[in-house]
Amino acid sequence: MPPIPRITVWNEFWHERNDPAVAAVYPDGIHGAVAAALREHGLGEVRTATLDEPEHGLSEAVLEATDVLFWWGHRKHDAVSDAVVARVQARVLQGMGLVVLHSGHYSKIFRRLTGTACTLDYRVAGERERLWVVSPGHPVAQGLGRFFELGREEMYGEPFAIPEPDALVFISWFEGGEVFRSGCCYTRGRGRIFYFRPGHETFPTYHDPAVRRVLANAARWATPEAPAHEPPANVRRDPIEPIGR
Amino acid sequence: MPPIPRITVWNEFWHERNDPAVAAVYPDGIHGAVAAALREHGLGEVRTATLDEPEHGLSEAVLEATDVLFWWGHRKHDAVSDAVVARVQARVLQGMGLVVLHSGHYSKIFRRLTGTACTLDYRVAGERERLWVVSPGHPVAQGLGRFFELGREEMYGEPFAIPEPDALVFISWFEGGEVFRSGCCYTRGRGRIFYFRPGHETFPTYHDPAVRRVLANAARWATPEAPAHEPPANVRRDPIEPIGR
Amino acid sequence: MPPIPRITVWNEFWHERNDPAVAAVYPDGIHGAVAAALREHGLGEVRTATLDEPEHGLSEAVLEATDVLFWWGHRKHDAVSDAVVARVQARVLQGMGLVVLHSGHYSKIFRRLTGTACTLDYRVAGERERLWVVSPGHPVAQGLGRFFELGREEMYGEPFAIPEPDALVFISWFEGGEVFRSGCCYTRGRGRIFYFRPGHETFPTYHDPAVRRVLANAARWATPEAPAHEPPANVRRDPIEPIGR
Amino acid sequence: MPPIPRITVWNEFWHERNDPAVAAVYPDGIHGAVAAALREHGLGEVRTATLDEPEHGLSEAVLEATDVLFWWGHRKHDAVSDAVVARVQARVLQGMGLVVLHSGHYSKIFRRLTGTACTLDYRVAGERERLWVVSPGHPVAQGLGRFFELGREEMYGEPFAIPEPDALVFISWFEGGEVFRSGCCYTRGRGRIFYFRPGHETFPTYHDPAVRRVLANAARWATPEAPAHEPPANVRRDPIEPIGR
Repeated sequence: MPPIPRITVWNEFWHERNDPAVAAVYPDGIHGAVAAALREHGLGEVRTATLDEPEHGLSEAVLEATDVLFWWGHRKHDAVSDAVVARVQARVLQGMGLVVLHSGHYSKIFRRLTGTACTLDYRVAGERERLWVVSPGHPVAQGLGRFFELGREEMYGEPFAIPEPDALVFISWFEGGEVFRSGCCYTRGRGRIFYFRPGHETFPTYHDPAVRRVLANAARWATPEAPAHEPPANVRRDPIEPIGR
Repeated sequence: MPPIPRITVWNEFWHERNDPAVAAVYPDGIHGAVAAALREHGLGEVRTATLDEPEHGLSEAVLEATDVLFWWGHRKHDAVSDAVVARVQARVLQGMGLVVLHSGHYSKIFRRLTGTACTLDYRVAGERERLWVVSPGHPVAQGLGRFFELGREEMYGEPFAIPEPDALVFISWFEGGEVFRSGCCYTRGRGRIFYFRPGHETFPTYHDPAVRRVLANAARWATPEAPAHEPPANVRRDPIEPIGR
Repeated sequence: MPPIPRITVWNEFWHERNDPAVAAVYPDGIHGAVAAALREHGLGEVRTATLDEPEHGLSEAVLEATDVLFWWGHRKHDAVSDAVVARVQARVLQGMGLVVLHSGHYSKIFRRLTGTACTLDYRVAGERERLWVVSPGHPVAQGLGRFFELGREEMYGEPFAIPEPDALVFISWFEGGEVFRSGCCYTRGRGRIFYFRPGHETFPTYHDPAVRRVLANAARWATPEAPAHEPPANVRRDPIEPIGR
Repeated sequence: MPPIPRITVWNEFWHERNDPAVAAVYPDGIHGAVAAALREHGLGEVRTATLDEPEHGLSEAVLEATDVLFWWGHRKHDAVSDAVVARVQARVLQGMGLVVLHSGHYSKIFRRLTGTACTLDYRVAGERERLWVVSPGHPVAQGLGRFFELGREEMYGEPFAIPEPDALVFISWFEGGEVFRSGCCYTRGRGRIFYFRPGHETFPTYHDPAVRRVLANAARWATPEAPAHEPPANVRRDPIEPIGR
């Protein structure tokens, strides 16, 4: 049984400090709302980190004490240092889970781990989104019905330029006519990665009960089942069996 | 039906110019041997490119005229410029096939496209390798028997730190006691990627008939079935259906 | 290069003979419309077979002369003999392509090859369906735009009880609020399988140009790239290397 | 968190009663040895079932009280009734885990769930098998080193006629020169399936500590994370959104 995972919720924390409309929706920051959702579901060991902190709040020590990292970014992807991205990637390969939220689709770390462009179509029109559960047996979908709805959200449309997911958990229906693969699972090295679509900064998505349940489910699913493992290296080995008989 | 693919064989071309033993095995360079194998199998449009050429021989113009790129590197991975790596990655995502050979497992481009460490265990002992065909119906395995053997090769051993392949075509048995996933297929964007294990510079692997057949098969499999497509971008879209009724 | 594939289009051919409304839409039967679509796209070697023929028109001889089999069934799944289903399965494992259409999701052969329930939600309300191209580089999607629409179709909704597809090509948006994985690729043995959702018997779906293009693309994609191979068996083998040194 | 899984170990139990050499290795039957291995690793709720019991010991009541089913069969695959196979399949689709052992590769239930021939090459020569951990972060591989060895085992060789596994955990190296995909993961419906190669009846494989650890790991991995769910059915649904505006 995994112990209680140690979670770090990272947010670029720009919109909330520069746009009063966003601050009104997320007075504690998007990271604050996500952290509250996790705590609400019994995940007590949650800290937050933001772009402007030293090393973006993601020092070696913080990452070593993190089992699952949540990532929300949008306007400031390019401000994230390559060194921190490399550090996060290394930790994922060692086993740390990573939950990439919404506009984090275009973050350096998600593009680095997938190897693809991670582009998509979009529209901010406050339209209705209905997330269908495609894999009802998947751990990330537990406790949900056949679908859940968000009254007003940004639209993300296909094609989403990602590798074929290992498992697809949600597909979104949008009022304006599009669809989107909204819950995508990957494994890279020993780390599990979950991409979860909803969460535009001007809508109260992270206050929605179904979304909060998914965040908690994703944290549990992404928690490593084994201790973090030193980064792999190329290693010279002696033969086990005799050669050249 | 795809036309004859335009192939570029890239080689760092260091060992052959610095180690007489390697030059003796590959007097025309490893790129020369690979190109000859492809031509031998009816793939006539083959050019080569090497590290020391301007832009490593991989200018925009060359890549735009390349349907499938072969990649052999070992000692000089770090000498490949990040700009050229990004350019190759962009072309793969647009549809160019990529065949990564042997020690290319640790090239910047393969690590970039997989998102993983791509490390492995190794040993140069001139031992016997037997490559088993795991997916006999796969295009890359056509014309082969149940297995083929290389009398003397470098050993590569598991764990190979890669994402789960979309299809696994070969598994190697080594005399010294190890196994290895020696033929691995991926799709990234519109591009197909094949990793093929054998090919240590001191052994005549690329002169072997079965290996040469695999190289040709891989070129055909990796050839895009549609024209290269402009790199995807995030695009704002108007609604198709009315919103907010 | 594959030669022109030999295609057999199978149809239970019940609705067209028992429901004048269906006969009006498909005067030559659904099999006739599908065959015409394939011929229109240059696939000249097309025959048809129906439930009421001896052995359902799928004798050993017919299957041996078939590279790709299309399958439309709905009301009469249970009337298909288990012996014919086993014969079709064996041929797929040997390399024959199989394109399963619409209500064929619940055919014996599709359930046999997937191992799953293959159930879904449905509604016949003549609503609009928009099929989004999720994998624009996939051979089955060539020649299409970002999406195509069908003005009136049956709705199929998730969860679709299938194994995770090897590749997902289309996702449908339905006017009534659902989504569906409408283009799903599998490989079983040496055979390629494509499931394509649209095609309710009372709507002119198989007369639609985009649908007809998909049918032809699917036939080409599912065509085996190697000769059919005798069915695999468990085989006792002598050792290649000495044992018990 | 899953509670302690309720496990049923099924064995055809023929060799042990008809071959004194096997009875000497497995005096409590292969099912007894597997059950002991699971109990040794803290999995206390283990029962056994065998072919000759009524309904092969797999009544509806037993299956409803089973979270994970182990399956060992070899000589008597055809004696397993189709009704019981259908019942087991239905339970897997509802969420029951299934661990298929050794010659169970050719059982009706494994072939039914994979849709493939499940054939392979084999040889009983008492040779050395070395199982390499290909996915060191996978739950089934926890607590193992880079590899583990069995001094004397039956050989199984590729090609193994299965669908591409969702995850490949072990690859075997055989003294006689072959390789094999020895630990294969699938999901079908809500159920997780693990195929584990070793276990010929004349060798003491299920007394080996590493094998016993894998059995326990597999049981934990295959345990459903949600309650069993009624079998899915095709369901007619009313529209959620207005149609035909």
